[in-house]
Amino acid sequence: MNQLNLSTLQSLLPEAKFHNTESISSVSFTGLTSLSLANTNEISFVAAKTFVNDAKTCKASLLIVSPDIVDSLTEKALIIVPKVELATAKIIRQFFPEKQPSGKHSTHIVLDPSAKIGSNTDIGHFVTIGKDSVIGNDCIIEDGVKIGDRVHIGDGSRIGKNCVFFDDTIVGKRFIVFGNSSFGGDGFGFVYAEGKHNKVPQVGRVVIGDDVEVGSNCTIDRGALTDTTIGNGCKFDNMVHIAHNCKVGDHVIIAGQSGLAGSVTLGNNVIIGGACAISDHLTLLEGTIIAGGSSLRTSPKTKDVYIGWDLGLTFPEFQKYRVNIKNIVNLNKWLKRIENVEKKVGIETKES
Amino acid sequence: MNQLNLSTLQSLLPEAKFHNTESISSVSFTGLTSLSLANTNEISFVAAKTFVNDAKTCKASLLIVSPDIVDSLTEKALIIVPKVELATAKIIRQFFPEKQPSGKHSTHIVLDPSAKIGSNTDIGHFVTIGKDSVIGNDCIIEDGVKIGDRVHIGDGSRIGKNCVFFDDTIVGKRFIVFGNSSFGGDGFGFVYAEGKHNKVPQVGRVVIGDDVEVGSNCTIDRGALTDTTIGNGCKFDNMVHIAHNCKVGDHVIIAGQSGLAGSVTLGNNVIIGGACAISDHLTLLEGTIIAGGSSLRTSPKTKDVYIGWDLGLTFPEFQKYRVNIKNIVNLNKWLKRIENVEKKVGIETKES
Amino acid sequence: MNQLNLSTLQSLLPEAKFHNTESISSVSFTGLTSLSLANTNEISFVAAKTFVNDAKTCKASLLIVSPDIVDSLTEKALIIVPKVELATAKIIRQFFPEKQPSGKHSTHIVLDPSAKIGSNTDIGHFVTIGKDSVIGNDCIIEDGVKIGDRVHIGDGSRIGKNCVFFDDTIVGKRFIVFGNSSFGGDGFGFVYAEGKHNKVPQVGRVVIGDDVEVGSNCTIDRGALTDTTIGNGCKFDNMVHIAHNCKVGDHVIIAGQSGLAGSVTLGNNVIIGGACAISDHLTLLEGTIIAGGSSLRTSPKTKDVYIGWDLGLTFPEFQKYRVNIKNIVNLNKWLKRIENVEKKVGIETKES
Repeated sequence: MNQLNLSTLQSLLPEAKFHNTESISSVSFTGLTSLSLANTNEISFVAAKTFVNDAKTCKASLLIVSPDIVDSLTEKALIIVPKVELATAKIIRQFFPEKQPSGKHSTHIVLDPSAKIGSNTDIGHFVTIGKDSVIGNDCIIEDGVKIGDRVHIGDGSRIGKNCVFFDDTIVGKRFIVFGNSSFGGDGFGFVYAEGKHNKVPQVGRVVIGDDVEVGSNCTIDRGALTDTTIGNGCKFDNMVHIAHNCKVGDHVIIAGQSGLAGSVTLGNNVIIGGACAISDHLTLLEGTIIAGGSSLRTSPKTKDVYIGWDLGLTFPEFQKYRVNIKNIVNLNKWLKRIENVEKKVGIETKES
Repeated sequence: MNQLNLSTLQSLLPEAKFHNTESISSVSFTGLTSLSLANTNEISFVAAKTFVNDAKTCKASLLIVSPDIVDSLTEKALIIVPKVELATAKIIRQFFPEKQPSGKHSTHIVLDPSAKIGSNTDIGHFVTIGKDSVIGNDCIIEDGVKIGDRVHIGDGSRIGKNCVFFDDTIVGKRFIVFGNSSFGGDGFGFVYAEGKHNKVPQVGRVVIGDDVEVGSNCTIDRGALTDTTIGNGCKFDNMVHIAHNCKVGDHVIIAGQSGLAGSVTLGNNVIIGGACAISDHLTLLEGTIIAGGSSLRTSPKTKDVYIGWDLGLTFPEFQKYRVNIKNIVNLNKWLKRIENVEKKVGIETKES
Repeated sequence: MNQLNLSTLQSLLPEAKFHNTESISSVSFTGLTSLSLANTNEISFVAAKTFVNDAKTCKASLLIVSPDIVDSLTEKALIIVPKVELATAKIIRQFFPEKQPSGKHSTHIVLDPSAKIGSNTDIGHFVTIGKDSVIGNDCIIEDGVKIGDRVHIGDGSRIGKNCVFFDDTIVGKRFIVFGNSSFGGDGFGFVYAEGKHNKVPQVGRVVIGDDVEVGSNCTIDRGALTDTTIGNGCKFDNMVHIAHNCKVGDHVIIAGQSGLAGSVTLGNNVIIGGACAISDHLTLLEGTIIAGGSSLRTSPKTKDVYIGWDLGLTFPEFQKYRVNIKNIVNLNKWLKRIENVEKKVGIETKES
């Protein structure tokens, strides 16, 4: 871990205003952590107004704050920025710089003679790279990665341990993936005939844009006839499954253990929470949000926040729904009361 | 990718009728794709009647159709077959033939001296095969596969990169699996005693039939005392989990991210959609269908289509249920109306 | 598989009473299996009173029983123990002893010179171990495992094939994990700003206690600023996902395909069934049980059994809820009946 001083922070955050920092101009900051854990010579951050009191009693020598809470903390040394989380992320990165490639290739690898490896790219131990595959410059290919034929990995990518890339997978620049993820396996396509499930050859590819990050143990399948495509800037958590022929727009977020069935189309900036299941052939409009744990069977008509088990409910409707769940528990008693009333007023009770 | 001509197609599909194909008898077809993407010298297919108009304006030189839509397309060159998808799959396979093994063994492998490898089987780089394991003929074991002791893999199998097989796993012929799947790990069995969870040894095996295909990142656990068994012709998508002691029949389909808890029994030809959870010890009768996103806590009594969160609803019931979800959102208002009516007619309102 | 005799069993189970075992004192027992499968010279067990009749007709030479059913089986040879499952587990382990390490290191490995490997620890083929990592004594590191820098693995651990450990992951003693699991990948943290999702560096670690067992294809992510922690004695099934900053207590059970979103806190002895989704920042009190297939969006207030799709229902409430699902299917008809009654008694029907 690095140490940082004030002038480094000033260069890092040119948009920031530094308040009351004269007395700490020669401090070597040793880390950045939460208000409750921070000690002298550490930096902390005030994520929201509700933490102002914690900030007042916090031991950190320097606080990252937004302009609207400066007045409550004038006696503290402050870094005033429009977006606290973004500045915080930038400073953490200074303390913990990313590993940089050095162009080192393990001797325990098998590269096909036709494979091309860019300059300054690291190749870890027990990696294999197949025929006509191309790895860009400044990449880190970690130990145990297995890359098939005609795979392209863009410049500046980091491929985590034991990930596999089947033939023809195309990945853009600055791709990040963690461990044991699988790209370009066959889509799930069969025709039932003659008493068995006959395989439909899956001859499309996986094509991933730039600046995409994928977690551990994810799977993205190749298309059937056309490609499965992932746009730029998408971020997928662990155990995300993208089936064949999905078309995912730019800057889409998908949290852990969620999956898209075949031929789903996601507009730009869609956000899907964790443990969601999106049925095949659905379309989500740009900016649609699906709350975690939801299962979607029909395409939402509007760009909205949706939630629930195939409820087709927007978030405000869901909140009312949730209040009524306790009423469902006793619904049979209520229905009996309807029958009693009908009897009382002389309506003939019939089977409902 | 291969090119194909008419006589090759005629040999491939002896049951097909070729209509109006005289003028294209010398064409080299360059591919098969969808109606909207197909160009001259490409083949396309009409999956259903609703696509007849697209077919009329499509540029493809040859269309695969079913007998019932021939009359709408008489001016086109046609391949008339009873099952359009099956013929389409066969033709795609001709354009993109499967990789064939050539009997090549990487020199970067570790085979136990007692392991037996069949003839014409490829062994990729960084593969390990343990004691007394047997790999059949004509298999492709891709890079990074790790096979334990006493594992059997049947003839004609394709084992994808970085899959692992724990000891004693038995796999039939023509098995296909993609990347990072795990077979034969211990089932999840513990006895709580003396303040902790004590492991119950899992000494059964995984036994898989012929012609099974499994996706990427799946897990099939060994049985506790007896075996976990998978029948012939089953097809599992990515991230499918089969727990210990399950008995899966023949030709069962399980889509992505679905799981069977321990000791589930599935009859032949069961279909389970994606993201389903089947509770332990349930039995699904032959041909039962569970819609995607369902969670099943009780064994359905009939061979039917089931759906929903532990609703025990058949598909027609579910459709009515779904209509009523909007009524649940306002259920508390309706219950108030029942109370008002009771008051009006002189029924004493009591706590429901 | 070993064979066992009576005196071995007596030493193994000092707390047991042996009844009517004189005639089998010289038998070599060949296995332990279920009542219906057991043969002469095999051992079986009576898991509950309901199996007493099966026990009477069973061929096993020796039965493990609890004291309350001895009277029904006096003519049989019995091992009488307070906890039948625990004794059964101990005897199975005698028949199938665990693999023991022998201190063998494959020559096909890459250990950083600074890595330390304990005594009597096996290192399988194609394993890599990074800078300053420490592997304890008496471990088995199976083929294909990839271990980063500054990772600690405690004494007596078994690391399954192709698992990956990213930098700084700390694992206690007697850890068990099966295939293709990933530890210490980055947590899923981004700040949306300037039109894209900006990565928040994840600089916490994964810290796992003693006696933890993890299945195949699981993922446990490193914390953002502080650590993700797993207590002692936890047992996780396959495809379990633990997100960044979770704090999991001791002896927690999580069944297959369940996941914890970020910053979830689980008390000791929590049990989470399969296919559950626990939303971020929730807290489950010690001993709370979440039934399989549940999705939790709010922290339960009590230590209880919870169930359902974000229903916030306890198990008894859920049972009433479930009865009422059939009423929801026809709810619109019931609401019409309310309107009819209102009309009849002269209440003006308004939009509900």
